[in-house]
Amino acid sequence: MSTFGQYYRVTTYGESHCRSVGCIVDGCPPGMELTEEDIQPQMTRRRPGQSNITTPRNEKDKVFIQSGTEFGVTLGTPIGMMVLNEDQRPKDYGNLTMDRFPRPSHADWTYLEKYGVKASSGGGRSSARETIGRVAAGAIAEKYLRLAYGIEIVAFTTSVGNVHLFPPTPEHPSPSTNPAFLSLVNSIDRKTVDSYLPVRCPDTEASQKMVDLISDFRDRHDSIGGTVTCVIRNCPSGLGEPCFDKLEATLAHAMLSIPATKGFEIGSGFGGCEVPGSTHNDPFVSASDVQLPSSVAESGAARSGTPRPRLTTKTNYSGGIQGGISNGAPIYFRVGFKPAATIGQEQQTATYDGSEEGILAAKGRHDPCVVPRAIPIVEAMAALVIMDAVLAQQARHTAKSLLPPLKQTVNSGKPTGNGVTETEKV
Amino acid sequence: MSTFGQYYRVTTYGESHCRSVGCIVDGCPPGMELTEEDIQPQMTRRRPGQSNITTPRNEKDKVFIQSGTEFGVTLGTPIGMMVLNEDQRPKDYGNLTMDRFPRPSHADWTYLEKYGVKASSGGGRSSARETIGRVAAGAIAEKYLRLAYGIEIVAFTTSVGNVHLFPPTPEHPSPSTNPAFLSLVNSIDRKTVDSYLPVRCPDTEASQKMVDLISDFRDRHDSIGGTVTCVIRNCPSGLGEPCFDKLEATLAHAMLSIPATKGFEIGSGFGGCEVPGSTHNDPFVSASDVQLPSSVAESGAARSGTPRPRLTTKTNYSGGIQGGISNGAPIYFRVGFKPAATIGQEQQTATYDGSEEGILAAKGRHDPCVVPRAIPIVEAMAALVIMDAVLAQQARHTAKSLLPPLKQTVNSGKPTGNGVTETEKV
Amino acid sequence: MSTFGQYYRVTTYGESHCRSVGCIVDGCPPGMELTEEDIQPQMTRRRPGQSNITTPRNEKDKVFIQSGTEFGVTLGTPIGMMVLNEDQRPKDYGNLTMDRFPRPSHADWTYLEKYGVKASSGGGRSSARETIGRVAAGAIAEKYLRLAYGIEIVAFTTSVGNVHLFPPTPEHPSPSTNPAFLSLVNSIDRKTVDSYLPVRCPDTEASQKMVDLISDFRDRHDSIGGTVTCVIRNCPSGLGEPCFDKLEATLAHAMLSIPATKGFEIGSGFGGCEVPGSTHNDPFVSASDVQLPSSVAESGAARSGTPRPRLTTKTNYSGGIQGGISNGAPIYFRVGFKPAATIGQEQQTATYDGSEEGILAAKGRHDPCVVPRAIPIVEAMAALVIMDAVLAQQARHTAKSLLPPLKQTVNSGKPTGNGVTETEKV
Amino acid sequence: MSTFGQYYRVTTYGESHCRSVGCIVDGCPPGMELTEEDIQPQMTRRRPGQSNITTPRNEKDKVFIQSGTEFGVTLGTPIGMMVLNEDQRPKDYGNLTMDRFPRPSHADWTYLEKYGVKASSGGGRSSARETIGRVAAGAIAEKYLRLAYGIEIVAFTTSVGNVHLFPPTPEHPSPSTNPAFLSLVNSIDRKTVDSYLPVRCPDTEASQKMVDLISDFRDRHDSIGGTVTCVIRNCPSGLGEPCFDKLEATLAHAMLSIPATKGFEIGSGFGGCEVPGSTHNDPFVSASDVQLPSSVAESGAARSGTPRPRLTTKTNYSGGIQGGISNGAPIYFRVGFKPAATIGQEQQTATYDGSEEGILAAKGRHDPCVVPRAIPIVEAMAALVIMDAVLAQQARHTAKSLLPPLKQTVNSGKPTGNGVTETEKV
Repeated sequence: MSTFGQYYRVTTYGESHCRSVGCIVDGCPPGMELTEEDIQPQMTRRRPGQSNITTPRNEKDKVFIQSGTEFGVTLGTPIGMMVLNEDQRPKDYGNLTMDRFPRPSHADWTYLEKYGVKASSGGGRSSARETIGRVAAGAIAEKYLRLAYGIEIVAFTTSVGNVHLFPPTPEHPSPSTNPAFLSLVNSIDRKTVDSYLPVRCPDTEASQKMVDLISDFRDRHDSIGGTVTCVIRNCPSGLGEPCFDKLEATLAHAMLSIPATKGFEIGSGFGGCEVPGSTHNDPFVSASDVQLPSSVAESGAARSGTPRPRLTTKTNYSGGIQGGISNGAPIYFRVGFKPAATIGQEQQTATYDGSEEGILAAKGRHDPCVVPRAIPIVEAMAALVIMDAVLAQQARHTAKSLLPPLKQTVNSGKPTGNGVTETEKV
Repeated sequence: MSTFGQYYRVTTYGESHCRSVGCIVDGCPPGMELTEEDIQPQMTRRRPGQSNITTPRNEKDKVFIQSGTEFGVTLGTPIGMMVLNEDQRPKDYGNLTMDRFPRPSHADWTYLEKYGVKASSGGGRSSARETIGRVAAGAIAEKYLRLAYGIEIVAFTTSVGNVHLFPPTPEHPSPSTNPAFLSLVNSIDRKTVDSYLPVRCPDTEASQKMVDLISDFRDRHDSIGGTVTCVIRNCPSGLGEPCFDKLEATLAHAMLSIPATKGFEIGSGFGGCEVPGSTHNDPFVSASDVQLPSSVAESGAARSGTPRPRLTTKTNYSGGIQGGISNGAPIYFRVGFKPAATIGQEQQTATYDGSEEGILAAKGRHDPCVVPRAIPIVEAMAALVIMDAVLAQQARHTAKSLLPPLKQTVNSGKPTGNGVTETEKV
Repeated sequence: MSTFGQYYRVTTYGESHCRSVGCIVDGCPPGMELTEEDIQPQMTRRRPGQSNITTPRNEKDKVFIQSGTEFGVTLGTPIGMMVLNEDQRPKDYGNLTMDRFPRPSHADWTYLEKYGVKASSGGGRSSARETIGRVAAGAIAEKYLRLAYGIEIVAFTTSVGNVHLFPPTPEHPSPSTNPAFLSLVNSIDRKTVDSYLPVRCPDTEASQKMVDLISDFRDRHDSIGGTVTCVIRNCPSGLGEPCFDKLEATLAHAMLSIPATKGFEIGSGFGGCEVPGSTHNDPFVSASDVQLPSSVAESGAARSGTPRPRLTTKTNYSGGIQGGISNGAPIYFRVGFKPAATIGQEQQTATYDGSEEGILAAKGRHDPCVVPRAIPIVEAMAALVIMDAVLAQQARHTAKSLLPPLKQTVNSGKPTGNGVTETEKV
Repeated sequence: MSTFGQYYRVTTYGESHCRSVGCIVDGCPPGMELTEEDIQPQMTRRRPGQSNITTPRNEKDKVFIQSGTEFGVTLGTPIGMMVLNEDQRPKDYGNLTMDRFPRPSHADWTYLEKYGVKASSGGGRSSARETIGRVAAGAIAEKYLRLAYGIEIVAFTTSVGNVHLFPPTPEHPSPSTNPAFLSLVNSIDRKTVDSYLPVRCPDTEASQKMVDLISDFRDRHDSIGGTVTCVIRNCPSGLGEPCFDKLEATLAHAMLSIPATKGFEIGSGFGGCEVPGSTHNDPFVSASDVQLPSSVAESGAARSGTPRPRLTTKTNYSGGIQGGISNGAPIYFRVGFKPAATIGQEQQTATYDGSEEGILAAKGRHDPCVVPRAIPIVEAMAALVIMDAVLAQQARHTAKSLLPPLKQTVNSGKPTGNGVTETEKV
């Protein structure tokens, strides 16, 4: 399906060679100031050729709001958005090699198997241009989340090939135990990330190694993958809709829907599976000493007197999510991207009908590593997930607030028990 | 939400201490033979205490079909299923420690933050008993998939703590490149997996090491995590609904919705991000030599003359999915499980209201490693995803089949091009 | 589909001859007191044989809550509910007439056409027993709506055959113009309705005529239809989700999903199509003089300071909905029920395969008019619609409330225009 | 919500004064020939000023396909469609009367109550321009339904004010019993309907009376409502998804979502509620003598050997739907439209804040009767409903077809019973 979300519903359209690409956002709260200027920056960050950007007024991939706002304010009605395609002519079906041979590990063949019709661009909708609608919709969600809660979403490159910003070590099988990682997660912002263009890895040394590695792959007409880490700060507690729409489940869904992704891990991730429970459990401590960032202190939630969580955790192996529900700590996760399928080297393949083997090679320049450009896409999808979860939880909380108060259900007096609790049923 | 799937919709209910747990399956095809005997085996595999099972007639977690079948045949109407809870009494809200202190890294605190009401079992619906409905619904889906396509779904333990069945090596950063792994994926069945109880890791040496490791953690009143690998064989090509419901995205969603999961990787996974594209791309080859397993040859699809894919791939880094769509090769993925939060050791925590710090420890026996019992749950969720994707693709294919034929859109004659294709727009 | 609603999601299961019928309610606000005693009264009102009810402790159709509550309070998790079927044995497929001949205008034939499998009860899921889950779910919604807003939902019989409570006249083509109707709509309650058992038409004379007419049809082994009018009072303004889920659209959907319904009209309805616009338009007047009923004054919304609408309408041809959105006035609508298909008279039909014509007649007692028993079902479906709309609007309102305030967008000073407005584009 | 349908999902956007209006169609079958020429005719029929149309090349409301097709063939990917708005400038918020006074029975006030933001066009999204996206999406669905099944959908005006094409009589309380009506329903086509412009009522005498009545209302600066009847011919049996998505329920939902609608009745409708069951039940007869129209005989379903129903009904009070499922007979229903709220007469109203009463009148020309222009909108919404139902049923049927055959479940031999069947449980 081309719709994402239950409350903040994004429906996208468009492939490489049609008139335009875009989306409809249904469910955006009314009364929010919104113009194209709120959306364009992420569109521009998504564009190819980031390393050469010299002006923010780049006219390419320019987004136009079609509906849903008036005088720069959202009406609560569907927001249509569109970006024109520059090359709208689909290639003619000539008797070309690419029409006969599917590109290895690309979507050409599976799209034909699925739809029974071959677009001139092969897997037309598998094109990275499809992500334009996502980024536009994500930018709107981000604005709301920032205004309402002071939420900040920042993604950055954590590996290219085998060059890692935080390589796993015996001491730190997961970066969750690495103080340098946790410190970065608590403070990194987009401006800093973009100061490390072209790879967007916020470390001078690692960044340089990654640039060298990518250059090497480019020279060999090959490609290489990598990973992106994303942090969501200042998220309210209570987000996520068990049992099927746990917050990590919808984040995983969102991330694996991005082209070329191969993996997702939340918090301690796969490394955390090797850490003893006695270490991995995050002890609760009082949140009374927590200093609120100004973005939170000035947010709508703060203005409206929404109470702050009274607990926080000493460590954060959980990655800000427990039982599928956010606990208020920074949510962080990692996404793996495979090496781009389109490479300049000759590759073995066979005709669509299997009758003949052959060789295929991409001509022209192509991107040896998609990771740096994936950053704003990861941020956008994270914003869509959190926006949807926020609206769901707001709905529940408001519904509950209109009910008569209950007798107290959680004790807070002196304990009389022995500090021992029963194992629950399974 | 408690509903999973668009076409084969599963809605579950129930927590630890209520009358029953169960689900409603809406969208099951009519006319399939179905009784409780088709469902009970996976229910039994899911139960605790697997290592002590001596009789298949174990009466615990017995499932009862409530509706949707008659004379052992599905009617196409919703199938209600129920498993009674043995201990239906919620614990009284006494002034006990557990009522005042949330368990670290458990769902106690986030459930209260989310719902504002505290169930006696803490995060009541985060209980593993919630998965009963999933396993029941998955067993029905599996039966359909087997009858209609000969699909086989098998999960097994691939690591406990740092004991790996296929440890990553410089030569094989991802098991996808390891012939022993690929051979296992092509042949493993559930009977073999269960012959390696209690850990369900199909290798004598690794299995023994895992047993020892778990025993060690049990003795120290600690817990440890691990990973499960699952393979889906004989899947038709064309499954998966881009752009948001790519097959790996819905698999990731399904897997991360299982309690205690921390990560998901499809095919080559995170390891594959370090492999050059020239290696990672899976060359297409003719499928004409592929030998059909008998389960496929005797399936409904074969009987009805559904054509087989004409291509297959020489390698399978893609894990059976390209562009978000299945390509007919085995789909395999890995899921990470964290160490269980409930441990016998004393742990630091604070009261719900943050006013006081304290110590909490679980009494009684508890499971030091949830991985072996997660096997049937992973299989069930995989079945739900594939079932939904199969119904969606069948619908599309049938809809298309009623349209007038088009002029040929894919050439199959001699190539006239130079084997070079343009890079597509991004 | 067997699921209704987006926010308050009800999934039902069960047919006549299975173990049980019931439903899962997902999305019920947490923290509401709820036991079976809140649900049973509507279940009992739905039961057949209303005229003979002598005790409220009737044990038939007894509902059991399976999950989602603890100590009589909702947890916010799915609420499973179940009513056991007394006769669980499906009839054996003998060579009986009913197995060969579909009943005219019943669901026997279309169910077989749709599912390709014939349940022993013919259109098994078309049985009125299917409505049990709806009524149970509706009772929970009603309780919330009453507590949170003081909403009252009352349905009553307005016609049986050609006996009308408010027959259309040249003066009053629609009852909307009839003061007696509007007065009734403003005040009728369930207790009054039930004092007019067995037909539930709150007028002594009309009621008696209806009883006589039904008796007449019963004696002739025939059946007759009728209409039910339902009013929803104290609804907040702003409910309904254009453009597709306008409030009247979801009400129409809900009502036409009830077995045996043939029509739906909102407000002035079909009669209103014959009234000039100059009459039909409802003039706005200040709501400052409106007296709040105590149920509203004591509701959660009042307690939380939710502002009351500042306008109301002098007349109510609109039936409480304008532009698909509630305006705070009483919502009223009418639902038409056809004569029951099952009658004792002999009827012409043909075998399922069309090979032979034949005669079919129902044996035993059957209901000559379903209208009186439909009353609680109409109320339940109305409650489901309003509940869903309330949660959607609460979500929007809360989301908006966290945004920074806008400059004023509606003027309220002295008019300077000439009282003339442009026709809008179409 | 702005999305309609589960399988063929239409999402619309746009209001009166934004850049464009349009929609995204997700789920259109791939491989269908489709260009703007398939869509434009219904767009043009929807436009205002039908009586003055002299050329089919009218350039207004011109639709542009944005995506989802290539070389005039659908790809199976989302189809974006757009119609530019000519007047994109929202009116400035001056201190005008219309900014202060809501129009009676228009959506101005309820939109402000709902969204808390006032669009310059009042109830911006309640504008009839919103229906453009529906009509475009409906035209695509219609094409598929015609090619695949020979389905024909035709709507026509059946009343304006109290001028009825088939006025109810004691003999014919519902037109369903009127042979002239049934004959019309069996044969009417769009060309004939449009030959009765401007009112689209296919009867010379009634048409003239309607024209006179509308002229009269126009002269008095007033408005009047009416009804539209729509027939869907050649529908396959088995459509409709009980229990909540019965075919009449989704049709009712669709129709009541059209602006200005007040009522819906299927088949015999409200009139049928006054007909005895013994008359109302439609006797089954063999369908072997039914002559297939050429559109059906040449359809994809016929080509693919889809079996035809073996039964039909002698009468059609049911309106082609029984138990919520189509039975293959013509589906017909009636929709009521209220008099347009915007009239030239002065009308009483009050300021938004209730502080002041006032008088409002629309300037300029306005439409005294919306019924004739509603015809293509009714047809479009009917097409969306049937398309969704067709895809759902195709999915089920195909899923079932891959299962092993069951033992026969319906007898077809000689009857041995006594022609008497038990009343089912309720």
